[in-house]
Amino acid sequence: MQVRKAVITAAAPDQSRLPLQQLIDAQGRERTALALIIDEATSAGIEEIAVIIRPEDASAYESAAESTSVDLHFIKQAKPTGYAAALTLASDFIGSENFLHLVGDHLYVESTNQTCAKQLINVAAEFGCSVSAVQATRETNLPYFGIVSGPRVPQLDRVFEIETVLEKPTPTKAEQHLITPGLRSGQYLGFFGMHVLTPEVMSLLKDLSNAPESKPASLSDALAQLPGRQRYLAYQLRGSRYNLGVDYGLLRAQLAIGLSGRDRDLILTELVDLLAGRLEGTHQS
Amino acid sequence: MQVRKAVITAAAPDQSRLPLQQLIDAQGRERTALALIIDEATSAGIEEIAVIIRPEDASAYESAAESTSVDLHFIKQAKPTGYAAALTLASDFIGSENFLHLVGDHLYVESTNQTCAKQLINVAAEFGCSVSAVQATRETNLPYFGIVSGPRVPQLDRVFEIETVLEKPTPTKAEQHLITPGLRSGQYLGFFGMHVLTPEVMSLLKDLSNAPESKPASLSDALAQLPGRQRYLAYQLRGSRYNLGVDYGLLRAQLAIGLSGRDRDLILTELVDLLAGRLEGTHQS
Repeated sequence: MQVRKAVITAAAPDQSRLPLQQLIDAQGRERTALALIIDEATSAGIEEIAVIIRPEDASAYESAAESTSVDLHFIKQAKPTGYAAALTLASDFIGSENFLHLVGDHLYVESTNQTCAKQLINVAAEFGCSVSAVQATRETNLPYFGIVSGPRVPQLDRVFEIETVLEKPTPTKAEQHLITPGLRSGQYLGFFGMHVLTPEVMSLLKDLSNAPESKPASLSDALAQLPGRQRYLAYQLRGSRYNLGVDYGLLRAQLAIGLSGRDRDLILTELVDLLAGRLEGTHQS
Repeated sequence: MQVRKAVITAAAPDQSRLPLQQLIDAQGRERTALALIIDEATSAGIEEIAVIIRPEDASAYESAAESTSVDLHFIKQAKPTGYAAALTLASDFIGSENFLHLVGDHLYVESTNQTCAKQLINVAAEFGCSVSAVQATRETNLPYFGIVSGPRVPQLDRVFEIETVLEKPTPTKAEQHLITPGLRSGQYLGFFGMHVLTPEVMSLLKDLSNAPESKPASLSDALAQLPGRQRYLAYQLRGSRYNLGVDYGLLRAQLAIGLSGRDRDLILTELVDLLAGRLEGTHQS
């Protein structure tokens, strides 16, 4: 299974500014969040990327993408009609290919020598099916995530056969339908914001977007229909993801990237300095 | 001496994105850096603000200014002809009034119950002359700042009579011309990025901008001509400033603001969590 294309969604009104934020990457270079997300995709061998944006953000995104060797397309979502609808705008771009999907408001830090996207694509290549990255998620965080459940694939520590998908379930629903054997009590498998999907998922998304529903469909609504039709796996990859859209999300992401990279010692020194209240008066800043 | 107007400079090509960055303020609200700078000015009683920007940044800045009760003007600097030239674009806006000047790429955290701008304006009102906020600055940081020197005003701990101003002096020049009695050895008074200026400074800036010089004039070049013509003071105010344009400047500013505000405990917890390596796997973000 080959994955050459990626789709990044960044058109949600409350999140569209996040990819434009500036950070320092693990090599100490000043980058936008968008450039880091594009790096994540290209690190996994992606050759073409479509970014779904609001029309008014086009010039800011073009500048924030910085110079990249990848083939980059901006697709404009004219109205905020939801996550599933945004993804379907990339269906001509995807054609009949598998694709990597990343959300535009998350950043990733691997805890091994392969990037998170690369780890995920390796699993998809091995099993030849759709795979969603997941992480163990506490019950208190159910309101933020799509949650999946299903049995562990025999002999494999981190791969699960997905049977059920629910978007932001209540604790009661989660307890009834989403217990995954082998996880610690009160923990669930929550989406990580990164998926390898087959073109069939695009068809499911299109059907949902065209259905006369009261509320806009989510990606989870489409993925919930996948088990039974096609094999669909979850992979607990080795790394962390940082949601830029939560309070202090940018701060947390920058600290995590900084502490994982070249400037680890510098950042630790800054923290100690700051916490010791020594910043006032004579620091450079 | 009354100060009703403020001028914020934000047109330097390498700094124009900084005011658009998002942070969480001391009250836990999501704000842009520009909105925080505007807050700083209005906290000191400023009623009208001119922001000098690049023409292409107009719509981004208008949106980043957020809703504010202050009378806000955007003045476009068509070409990057320097700091002094940028300030002179506000000369019609200023007219014959005194004005507060803030740089667009710094944020401020007071360490007393008055904001930094308010402290500075109080001193200007008391003495009825131009006052630049300064902080004690180590020799190693001379390349980043305008440096001033002069005797302490008798009976006053934090007010200095400025005699000399030099922009980014070499250590040798600083040692020869910029020693301020009473500071610790190897320390100098460096600009803080915040000034109350008389309309005469605007005239000096205009003269400099019109002069056929090889390199664009800086604000320091104009301020260097002020002592002797008018009284000109430096005030070591109670607070810290954070330059967003240096490496990890945004991170440092966000940490300082966060640790000074409502979410202090939350941020300390995050830091401990992160440093303990516990972020992986089960955290919310």
